[in-house]
Amino acid sequence: MKIYTAKTAGFCFGVKRAIDIAFKVAKEKKKGIFTLGPIIHNPQVVEQLKDKGIYPIDDIKGKKGINAVIIRTHGIPIDLHNKILSKGYKIIDATCPFVKKAQFYAKLLKEQNYQVIILGEKNHPEVKSLMSYAGKDSIVVDSNIPFSKLKSRIGIVVQTTQPIDALKKFLSEVIGYSKEIKIYNTICNSTALRLKETEKLAKKVDIMFVVGGKNSANTTQLAKLCKSLCVKTYHIETPNEIKKSWLKGTNIIGITAGASTPDWIIKEVKKRIGDIGG
Amino acid sequence: MKIYTAKTAGFCFGVKRAIDIAFKVAKEKKKGIFTLGPIIHNPQVVEQLKDKGIYPIDDIKGKKGINAVIIRTHGIPIDLHNKILSKGYKIIDATCPFVKKAQFYAKLLKEQNYQVIILGEKNHPEVKSLMSYAGKDSIVVDSNIPFSKLKSRIGIVVQTTQPIDALKKFLSEVIGYSKEIKIYNTICNSTALRLKETEKLAKKVDIMFVVGGKNSANTTQLAKLCKSLCVKTYHIETPNEIKKSWLKGTNIIGITAGASTPDWIIKEVKKRIGDIGG
Repeated sequence: MKIYTAKTAGFCFGVKRAIDIAFKVAKEKKKGIFTLGPIIHNPQVVEQLKDKGIYPIDDIKGKKGINAVIIRTHGIPIDLHNKILSKGYKIIDATCPFVKKAQFYAKLLKEQNYQVIILGEKNHPEVKSLMSYAGKDSIVVDSNIPFSKLKSRIGIVVQTTQPIDALKKFLSEVIGYSKEIKIYNTICNSTALRLKETEKLAKKVDIMFVVGGKNSANTTQLAKLCKSLCVKTYHIETPNEIKKSWLKGTNIIGITAGASTPDWIIKEVKKRIGDIGG
Repeated sequence: MKIYTAKTAGFCFGVKRAIDIAFKVAKEKKKGIFTLGPIIHNPQVVEQLKDKGIYPIDDIKGKKGINAVIIRTHGIPIDLHNKILSKGYKIIDATCPFVKKAQFYAKLLKEQNYQVIILGEKNHPEVKSLMSYAGKDSIVVDSNIPFSKLKSRIGIVVQTTQPIDALKKFLSEVIGYSKEIKIYNTICNSTALRLKETEKLAKKVDIMFVVGGKNSANTTQLAKLCKSLCVKTYHIETPNEIKKSWLKGTNIIGITAGASTPDWIIKEVKKRIGDIGG
């Protein structure tokens, strides 16, 4: 039995950085520090932080005893940012630097009088944060393009975790409509690299494990890709989910994981496969 | 018998305008007026201008007696433009306004420190003129993209007669390479509109006439389209080619023409059909 773990599996640069920031803050043992939403889509990490006194809250509204708020990788809308500051709370900004860049470009395009188009999922927190920088006539586009709303000068930013094909498809469809198009390709390379490596891996294995939250967009995207290439693909959150029967008759095993999956979970998955397989 | 002539048949806006300018100048009967290259690729029109004293020259070098130079639709490089002025010659600018726009955008992109990419045919006069505005690190791209020469910020202008698919293909290939891309879609849609109208017309007629040079790329393209939609399609250069027998049993007749076909030839074709048909 041979187990291959994707090198790009697990935490990306931005998630690693955010967790480092949160745990560094936790060490200071100050009171009244909260994360706005779970720091990452991983319950174990969230629990570890709780143990150190840092709890997630969904909203600052009605909450008492707040001293500082940690912003997670996805970022937050500018009006929420300003509201937090106006309450006198400190902001500990763990927004992914690549998301920050996308926010900056959305703002820049708006200031240059482009109609800002954000390619991504309307309800994703990152997209909501980008929207707040993109101005009133901006549009979020996922799969259907609202051609009647498109202006002749459009500026494009992309949710950092989108696949490049989404941008290609959009461009080929709008190029005949808008006469001037400015694109900041804000897609983060780590997602692309992870998808690319996972694609290669899924093609050569008998069984593929995709490790990460069921509510994590990028993990779900990985699982979807693997399913199209390897019939025996399992999207799991913890090692305990793996059944001995799954491994029957499999020689080559692949493991990949989403951006919010800690290394130690990936290692435990590998260990459990080694223990119960073969 | 009903004859339909495509509204988009023949000269495009830019060619019409250039010829109007040349004949208007001819009326003034001033000496020493030359066109730089043939005003259009149509021998009859060039001959008519010669009759009025306006001759085409390939170069101003060594020529004597020049007072003014008429620039044709394709435009000229900026250094040639300056050279003409420095000699004390007047410039009568019949450059197509759409080409002018493309020149302007090439210059603007250069000034905004983009690496300017010109999509088009390297040896076409229009592309040569665009190059001169685009700066030293600009590149002309036809089908093969020199990826190793691409910078992270690129600005794109397109030869006005390129098909939109060339731009789509280029974008889908470079979008993963350059992080910031600004596109001015300078493609003129008159060719696309002519094909679209011709398609509609060819579907509803009994016989279709495509008028224009057998060596004209855009006329041949029109004829090919018509043949696929209307069995009785004739590609002709002059009205005299039309035979009475062709018109037997035809009630609805369509006429279209390439971009270098003068109106009077189209009118004569229509007249001849009326004279010998029905």
